[in-house]
Amino acid sequence: MTVPGTISLPQLRAFCLDAFERAGMTRPDADIGAQVLSTTDAWGVFTHGSKAMRGYLRRLQAGGLQARGRPRIVAEGPAWAVVDGDSALGMITSAFAMTAAIDKATQAGVGYIGVRNSSHFGAAGYYACLAARRGLIGLAMANDIPSVAAPGSRSAVTGSNPLAYAVPARRHQPLMLDMSVATVAGGKVYAARERGEPIPGTWLIGEDGLPTDDAASYPEHSVLTPAAAHKGFGLALLIESLAGCLSGAATTWQIRSWLGDDPALPTGHGAAFLALDCAAIGDDLPGRIDGLIDEIHAAPTAAGVPRLVVPGEIEWERFSVAQASGIALPSDVLASLRQSAEIARLDLDDYLAAGVNQASGGLRFGI
Amino acid sequence: MTVPGTISLPQLRAFCLDAFERAGMTRPDADIGAQVLSTTDAWGVFTHGSKAMRGYLRRLQAGGLQARGRPRIVAEGPAWAVVDGDSALGMITSAFAMTAAIDKATQAGVGYIGVRNSSHFGAAGYYACLAARRGLIGLAMANDIPSVAAPGSRSAVTGSNPLAYAVPARRHQPLMLDMSVATVAGGKVYAARERGEPIPGTWLIGEDGLPTDDAASYPEHSVLTPAAAHKGFGLALLIESLAGCLSGAATTWQIRSWLGDDPALPTGHGAAFLALDCAAIGDDLPGRIDGLIDEIHAAPTAAGVPRLVVPGEIEWERFSVAQASGIALPSDVLASLRQSAEIARLDLDDYLAAGVNQASGGLRFGI
Repeated sequence: MTVPGTISLPQLRAFCLDAFERAGMTRPDADIGAQVLSTTDAWGVFTHGSKAMRGYLRRLQAGGLQARGRPRIVAEGPAWAVVDGDSALGMITSAFAMTAAIDKATQAGVGYIGVRNSSHFGAAGYYACLAARRGLIGLAMANDIPSVAAPGSRSAVTGSNPLAYAVPARRHQPLMLDMSVATVAGGKVYAARERGEPIPGTWLIGEDGLPTDDAASYPEHSVLTPAAAHKGFGLALLIESLAGCLSGAATTWQIRSWLGDDPALPTGHGAAFLALDCAAIGDDLPGRIDGLIDEIHAAPTAAGVPRLVVPGEIEWERFSVAQASGIALPSDVLASLRQSAEIARLDLDDYLAAGVNQASGGLRFGI
Repeated sequence: MTVPGTISLPQLRAFCLDAFERAGMTRPDADIGAQVLSTTDAWGVFTHGSKAMRGYLRRLQAGGLQARGRPRIVAEGPAWAVVDGDSALGMITSAFAMTAAIDKATQAGVGYIGVRNSSHFGAAGYYACLAARRGLIGLAMANDIPSVAAPGSRSAVTGSNPLAYAVPARRHQPLMLDMSVATVAGGKVYAARERGEPIPGTWLIGEDGLPTDDAASYPEHSVLTPAAAHKGFGLALLIESLAGCLSGAATTWQIRSWLGDDPALPTGHGAAFLALDCAAIGDDLPGRIDGLIDEIHAAPTAAGVPRLVVPGEIEWERFSVAQASGIALPSDVLASLRQSAEIARLDLDDYLAAGVNQASGGLRFGI
């Protein structure tokens, strides 16, 4: 028996693809968006997966996202380019930009792509992994509307500005870290609120500048705390510099919220992608990463800790489980997908009913 | 009256230069080392300034550091190079490598330099600022012997792996962050121990895997905690990948301690330097950074907080004070300099006695 609310990975991808296509996107573009969102869910990162699609569909309908937007390179040099996202879905522009970074790195050893006129791009780790799957080190980052305090501030000063990297290994899955510069990403606060779960007192500070554990206060009456205080704040400004200021994108308060602001208007987000060609620069980097991972796995654990994991290891394990057994959708994700189905005039049950026993053949990582 | 133990910046630089020259380094090389260490002290980062010189002098005497070592490029492409440090003083190799990164970036837009056979390089922020002073964004990072736990580990798994960046502004000093991936760098634990100051219970975990506030237990019987748990751990592995695995340097347990291990043997540290040419890629990046800094300065502060500062702002303010009034050396730094003087057969009082009222002309940032 399949647990109700469990969906196979190919069916989740098919649902997202069909919904994006109904919103006016070309089938190849819709499939890129679907691949990013379903992979993110397969990693168990539900805050940044298909749950977000209803917001994208609303913006595609209203025109803030351009269904037929075409990202393009507007300036370039031997090891860099600037991409204008044309207000296309963030996944389309980001996949295009990381592919360009990989091309530059393959030529020059390193590639930097700055992106302007993009939008919310989902899980940064996806794009970093596009590079790792091709044997390169990848980094992905983006700016966002301010939601995070600086040390000593009473209001939001920077975005939660995601930073992700992926480093290819040989025997192991790529190392992959996808972090926000906040103690936790805002999506986790939203999820806790929707699920009615309590949050620790270290995630938010209220309008008085003091800590609060009231998830319902976010984002109207509280802001996120920066991870490790000045370190998270400092990383936020590095990301704003590379993804916003250098790329010519909107920054901080110039950016519009992809969730809260008028869906008819573009959000103007910036992003940055870096790739380094390990095959050109390094001497068997994947083999050395294997050794590093093996060494960490062999290190002694604290009492009660069964094993040490490297960044991305849990996500790749969940990915394997999702390939074999489908994804048990959390209630907030399922509710959001039903709203997406309504917007797209699709019947989610058609996709859920397909079960998880069908061959998931062909769904590998990548686009 | 000058406070005893206060030294002018030119005299501190002259002392370090003379000491390095006595250890066999060429005068130009000795001056690079002196400039890095005195600037670091002028920033108030005493854990990574001239206090460390006694350790370098011992290794220069014993041969683990090569006084006449010459860093050289051993492989390169349009936007990258690998530098072999020839076991020269870490400051020499790192300044050489960042200069190479700037050269590559000026040609290709971006430059990555991986470094092997280096040693402890002091304050990573110095090299990042070399790029910012030339109008480029600079990043600097290095690996080190394991001293930091992974989430759930009982022993050290990664180095405290410094990460620094600097971004040029126009009206303001460059943004500059220099952080370790540990909650605090080991140098701060050593300094607290030498000064007899207590430390918080969040900096270290003991051999049982539980937190300890016993600074004296470090590093023999405790390890540093990673900043923001899995985030600091994840960044440590990114830095190890770029500075160690990709550059062909020693990694984790292959590295020797520059303080604790046989001074006759090289340490084998790795490092990585990145530069991005803002003038080629961006449209008035320095002006946009000015705007970002102004915006943060204008944000409301929490009760009791007089002002918000951006990364590096306090360090640059201290630098100005040091230029005008000299540096009041903390007792542990002064004691270490006296040991350096003994090793180099110099009289520190000659330099201290020069007073701070002499013109400090000519001591600007840079090499």
